[in-house]
Amino acid sequence: MGTGQLQKAVRWYPPSYDIRVEDVPVPLIQDPDDAIVKVKLAALCGADLHIYRGHGGVEKIHTCGHEFIGEVVALGSAYGTHAKDRPLLYSTLKVGDKVVSPFTINCGECQACRFGFTARCAHSTLFGSPALEGGQAQYIRVPKAGATLFNLSDPKTWPNGTPTSLADSSLLMLADILPTGVFAALQCLSHPKVQPVLTGKPWPLSLHPNSATTDSAPLTQEDVRLTVAIIGLGPVGICTAVSLLDMLAARRHPHRIVGVDLLESRREKMRAVYAAIDQEGRGLGEFIACSPEEAKTTLGKWTQGVGCDAVIEVVGHNSALTLAYELVKAFGVITSVGVHGEPQLPFTGRQMYNKNVSFDFGRCPARAMFPMAFEILGKFKRQDVFGQVGERASLVDRITDFGQASESYRAFDKGEVGKIIFDPWK
Amino acid sequence: MGTGQLQKAVRWYPPSYDIRVEDVPVPLIQDPDDAIVKVKLAALCGADLHIYRGHGGVEKIHTCGHEFIGEVVALGSAYGTHAKDRPLLYSTLKVGDKVVSPFTINCGECQACRFGFTARCAHSTLFGSPALEGGQAQYIRVPKAGATLFNLSDPKTWPNGTPTSLADSSLLMLADILPTGVFAALQCLSHPKVQPVLTGKPWPLSLHPNSATTDSAPLTQEDVRLTVAIIGLGPVGICTAVSLLDMLAARRHPHRIVGVDLLESRREKMRAVYAAIDQEGRGLGEFIACSPEEAKTTLGKWTQGVGCDAVIEVVGHNSALTLAYELVKAFGVITSVGVHGEPQLPFTGRQMYNKNVSFDFGRCPARAMFPMAFEILGKFKRQDVFGQVGERASLVDRITDFGQASESYRAFDKGEVGKIIFDPWK
Repeated sequence: MGTGQLQKAVRWYPPSYDIRVEDVPVPLIQDPDDAIVKVKLAALCGADLHIYRGHGGVEKIHTCGHEFIGEVVALGSAYGTHAKDRPLLYSTLKVGDKVVSPFTINCGECQACRFGFTARCAHSTLFGSPALEGGQAQYIRVPKAGATLFNLSDPKTWPNGTPTSLADSSLLMLADILPTGVFAALQCLSHPKVQPVLTGKPWPLSLHPNSATTDSAPLTQEDVRLTVAIIGLGPVGICTAVSLLDMLAARRHPHRIVGVDLLESRREKMRAVYAAIDQEGRGLGEFIACSPEEAKTTLGKWTQGVGCDAVIEVVGHNSALTLAYELVKAFGVITSVGVHGEPQLPFTGRQMYNKNVSFDFGRCPARAMFPMAFEILGKFKRQDVFGQVGERASLVDRITDFGQASESYRAFDKGEVGKIIFDPWK
Repeated sequence: MGTGQLQKAVRWYPPSYDIRVEDVPVPLIQDPDDAIVKVKLAALCGADLHIYRGHGGVEKIHTCGHEFIGEVVALGSAYGTHAKDRPLLYSTLKVGDKVVSPFTINCGECQACRFGFTARCAHSTLFGSPALEGGQAQYIRVPKAGATLFNLSDPKTWPNGTPTSLADSSLLMLADILPTGVFAALQCLSHPKVQPVLTGKPWPLSLHPNSATTDSAPLTQEDVRLTVAIIGLGPVGICTAVSLLDMLAARRHPHRIVGVDLLESRREKMRAVYAAIDQEGRGLGEFIACSPEEAKTTLGKWTQGVGCDAVIEVVGHNSALTLAYELVKAFGVITSVGVHGEPQLPFTGRQMYNKNVSFDFGRCPARAMFPMAFEILGKFKRQDVFGQVGERASLVDRITDFGQASESYRAFDKGEVGKIIFDPWK
């Protein structure tokens, strides 16, 4: 791989809807912390559509994609036994190792990284953006790779109980959509305002042991049945549902969940996934996949007009935030992992005050969520959701070649297909 | 107290800035759940200023005030031993009992009340609003009093260790400002995104025991020093600071706090309060009261430009929310207890996403916070903050008569005085 070698890459052209496959130079090490990865598989993600549609204000032609899995083919001078004081992979990563990357880079050394908030690393950059070439190519340069990458060739770093035989198409889900789903579900369930439902103890006793008040009526069984709406049933929405259901099954906590999407094809996929994974949950929970209007009616009935305990928004559009506000109860929680753009938030301060709304916004710290995501990936291996490509309940609809790139973007944008993976060597 | 008896009351007249003291009928029992309370003391609160200034879109002449303490003089037919299945006070409250009320009523029986979210009770109504006559009067009608009121004549219901000899002017702080401060501080410290700072464990290990990741550098002592900004140093802001400092002293957690206000008189009061209460905290913390510009400079230095872990907003104005966003770090928390109005939130979705902001908005469930507020009230009794009226570090500047009502509203609105209490019988 010397200077001047060419590779195939999926490139975005301004202003919008223009995807071309081109020969571009193979990337080279630019910084001592860089690694060059030969891409085995790269996926198309809903977040890619923001730039595709021309919503991002982007003008620069660049290689697309932020989900990839591959093999290390070159490392910068920072790597080796002299790097013992740095994040693990600087001293252990080798050429030939199989790796998966989160969708943004992170240095592992700044304060945000030390806190585990890797998505907002001081060096955070999104792959497949004007600032950093993406993974829908045969080779990719990974800056800060010693903290960014996860070494799949080192099974002793895998969480206990994860089968080491996971398919590459399954492991690719670690790049973005599964950690983002885990992040959304974890944020929702760990919010203090949800604790009274989960613990059966009223606020603030749910948080502070010496704050008992005996002046209200006790909580009923119906009160502590958690009611959640998930808005958006694309691949991330489905991963959110899977993660949430897994966490609730682990707690054996009774629940009712509404998955909301405008497209029947996505609702149908969600139902198939639910049928595949709902084993422990039988009797503990209900799950409905429906349209926004049906969601309002169903939640109105279930909660007698009070609204649901939490809403998870996975769309990235003000209409989804407006629906979330409408569905949530007072003192409810809205967890938003959708990628939002320039429009002002569609809320007044009075609306926020009057409903005591809590919001958690933003990008998943995917690298920090890998252990939890791995655990789920292992658990559902035999259940086809993250497994066989093209099965009814599989998140991945097809693996295709770069020749299909432009058509794949078009069909994915229209909601005609679910998740698509590219094999750059096909 | 038969029909037609008159009493003195402080009344608001539209459109704005028009406060009159008038003779109005003494209220009567209207509903079986009502109590009539003879008011001993009633306070003027920052939230009263929204209507005072004509910001609330209010047109109805009404009696002002939502902070009062007094004595029960009449009870509806719901009270008595036949009410054993209802909230405690329906069966135990007696004529002659001394009571304090939170600033809104709550039934204690709806789902919101069972959860402890009493501020959003299905029957929630604010005293001193067009919907319910206020406490700046000689008598007040309290709907749902068996769940709303706290019985001060029943020391066995007081939290352990609270001295029963608290002055009425201290106990009056339970009506709104102290519970609101406790609520703000509790929301801030219990937010999941603050847990890495408090526990020293990175996200998501701070929440989920099996999610260890060893790929980032360990947290430093500097990282886990909690940095908080409190925007607004009126009485609620000061109560917030007192509550936060108390919780941090109990944890022996190192911290740096900036209190922000435009008015030097409020900053000066805050400094006096801090000097009075900072005993356990010496060496564990720093506290600065300053202007917004100084806050930006100080926090920039303290956090090397990263921003603070959490911001508590106690103003109720978009300028305060904008400042909060500017001061908070990525993955930081903004707790807003300010009363917000019609303007749209001054944020785009992109801003929220790009900084992974979490927001907690809304009204304090004061009745549910009473036990925690009581605990703090007892703790600081000898330290003048909630004690002697008019002392340098006292939250209460003066106790005056209704003759001073109009002038008191004017001076309070201008920030010329701190908290004012009315004695309706003076």
